[in-house]
Amino acid sequence: MTRELIISLDAMGGDHAPDIVIEGASIARERVPNVRFLIFGDETRIVPLLTRYPILKGCCEVHHTDKIISADEKPSQALRRGRDSSMGQTIQSVKDGKAQAAVLAGNTGAQMALAKFILRTMQGIDRPALATLIPTSRGESVMLDLGANVECDENNLVQFAIMGAAFARTVLGVSKPTVAILNVGVEELKGSDAIKNADRILREANIPMDYKGFTEGHGLGGGAVDVVVTDGFTGNIALKTAEGTARMIANLLKRSLNESLLSKIGALFASSSLMSLRNHLDPNNHNGAVFMGLNGLVIKSHGGASAKGFASAIGVAIDMAENDLAGKITRDLKNFNSTAVEQDEDQLAENDDTIVEMNIKEHK
Amino acid sequence: MTRELIISLDAMGGDHAPDIVIEGASIARERVPNVRFLIFGDETRIVPLLTRYPILKGCCEVHHTDKIISADEKPSQALRRGRDSSMGQTIQSVKDGKAQAAVLAGNTGAQMALAKFILRTMQGIDRPALATLIPTSRGESVMLDLGANVECDENNLVQFAIMGAAFARTVLGVSKPTVAILNVGVEELKGSDAIKNADRILREANIPMDYKGFTEGHGLGGGAVDVVVTDGFTGNIALKTAEGTARMIANLLKRSLNESLLSKIGALFASSSLMSLRNHLDPNNHNGAVFMGLNGLVIKSHGGASAKGFASAIGVAIDMAENDLAGKITRDLKNFNSTAVEQDEDQLAENDDTIVEMNIKEHK
Repeated sequence: MTRELIISLDAMGGDHAPDIVIEGASIARERVPNVRFLIFGDETRIVPLLTRYPILKGCCEVHHTDKIISADEKPSQALRRGRDSSMGQTIQSVKDGKAQAAVLAGNTGAQMALAKFILRTMQGIDRPALATLIPTSRGESVMLDLGANVECDENNLVQFAIMGAAFARTVLGVSKPTVAILNVGVEELKGSDAIKNADRILREANIPMDYKGFTEGHGLGGGAVDVVVTDGFTGNIALKTAEGTARMIANLLKRSLNESLLSKIGALFASSSLMSLRNHLDPNNHNGAVFMGLNGLVIKSHGGASAKGFASAIGVAIDMAENDLAGKITRDLKNFNSTAVEQDEDQLAENDDTIVEMNIKEHK
Repeated sequence: MTRELIISLDAMGGDHAPDIVIEGASIARERVPNVRFLIFGDETRIVPLLTRYPILKGCCEVHHTDKIISADEKPSQALRRGRDSSMGQTIQSVKDGKAQAAVLAGNTGAQMALAKFILRTMQGIDRPALATLIPTSRGESVMLDLGANVECDENNLVQFAIMGAAFARTVLGVSKPTVAILNVGVEELKGSDAIKNADRILREANIPMDYKGFTEGHGLGGGAVDVVVTDGFTGNIALKTAEGTARMIANLLKRSLNESLLSKIGALFASSSLMSLRNHLDPNNHNGAVFMGLNGLVIKSHGGASAKGFASAIGVAIDMAENDLAGKITRDLKNFNSTAVEQDEDQLAENDDTIVEMNIKEHK
């Protein structure tokens, strides 16, 4: 762990940039002393902030950019004029090998477009996917895709499963993660053709995962599996529904506990327990979604994350960089594809046998 | 409210049938004295149970059936051999005008298939949808479809919106409910073509609703709108994700509050507040999903509902029957279609104008 890690940061992305980004980097540096930062953005705003964090100041380089991608910029606009923005330069530093990972909190669509354009998709992956950790009653699970792809075919889903399993092995520390596809029922006859075909392929695939078939929406909160695979439309809705439900309950709980003097006293007694529950569910503690399937590590932070939240996203970047996520995916893809070729050959051989048998029968 | 209501019940459906069904009917009867029941199923099991509920016994008729549709029976099997089962007969009684609504807790796929086959789809509705109430921080919202249709086009979604608005006017008591389509973003350029087209049609439609455009997963728990419209795949996943998240938090909360003596004391003081929150979130209090768009009222109860939960589903059936849900939908559809025809004619007239203009230009 003495190897130096370099993480690039877009200082200008998110609701409270650059303050939150700089403070977040400082928190992350306290946790991981062998990390250095490349910080991209408006130096007239960044440099004065750094005076508050002398340790961070000593382990970062500020690279000035004039341009900033705004929150409402369309992906196509970002592609046209965003290469020399703080966002574009942060990603470019990964492409150029100057940083091992990039962390950005800006406009998601623009980030995705620029990251795909600059880093390109890994060999064997048709479409990148956005993956994140979600809190469950057993701990945490990985879920993907969360919105990079609105429509997905079976090959996309299979590739998401491979990438998600590599994510889980890296971050959750399980050697053979359990994986399932999100569906409206656990029976094999349910769901779209893409889902049913992906299920069939994964049942036969040779990948370091324990494929479990389908899981339903209930399974998300219950932590039924380590990796939940779904298309970007469903994943986005499921994640936001879970977050919205958690927030609703937190609000209702707060309201209930303020209802009477008795309940206020109760809340006081239970405050440390309630706080630990709140910490487990706080999205800031699960911040940091990974754009998977690119030739380079890009981590997306919530735009509204706190400094602590941004530090969590940097933590994900460090984990991924130290544990060679990309290498794992490449190896798994290679194994998967070579098995698939063997199976195709077996299938062809079987077909040949069948044809031979049919010919024999016909001749009888 | 002196008019007598007749509700038919499948006594043999659900995890704890027929006990839960009979006890649930008894609870519902206490709440609504002008209701009578037709109960279908195995009389050797039903009649002994009724001796425990003399009031219920005095206001119900038991109709014996030999056949029961099992939980794992496929919809196609149910169609072939299920017409004279307790499930089939319960639905048939609505078709025959003997009951104003049916309530069933059995196999959902079989119910849907039999209900569609026996009652047929309403004129102007291409596909029925399953709708239910979900708890929010503001109260309750209607959500549909919850799994009747895995894939939906724009016309299905528009019809779901019309039916959902009628549901909200009937049960939530709002004269012009707010309606939105569930999507991955609130911008008009996001989502599938079906979603974008449905959005365009609803913006121009003349229906008693306040159409708000898109809502995201966050909006479900927040109660952003009265009616959330979505396809059956997404709706099923979103509903189950919300239920699973609520259950996860309840489990974690229970665990947290049992952690220390202090927190146990706190829980004791806050117990009545915690109980009222629990009641609001208890799926049994929101039980009763409606198959909308059929020529007859069919209400589906959770298979695992308690007697109180089954009574809630009967309550939904009573509300719907008393407030003429079907009449509302029929009128709204008629208005919507006549406006749509006018708009088509306007469009044709405009096209004619354009053609004329083009001809004039060409001749110049």
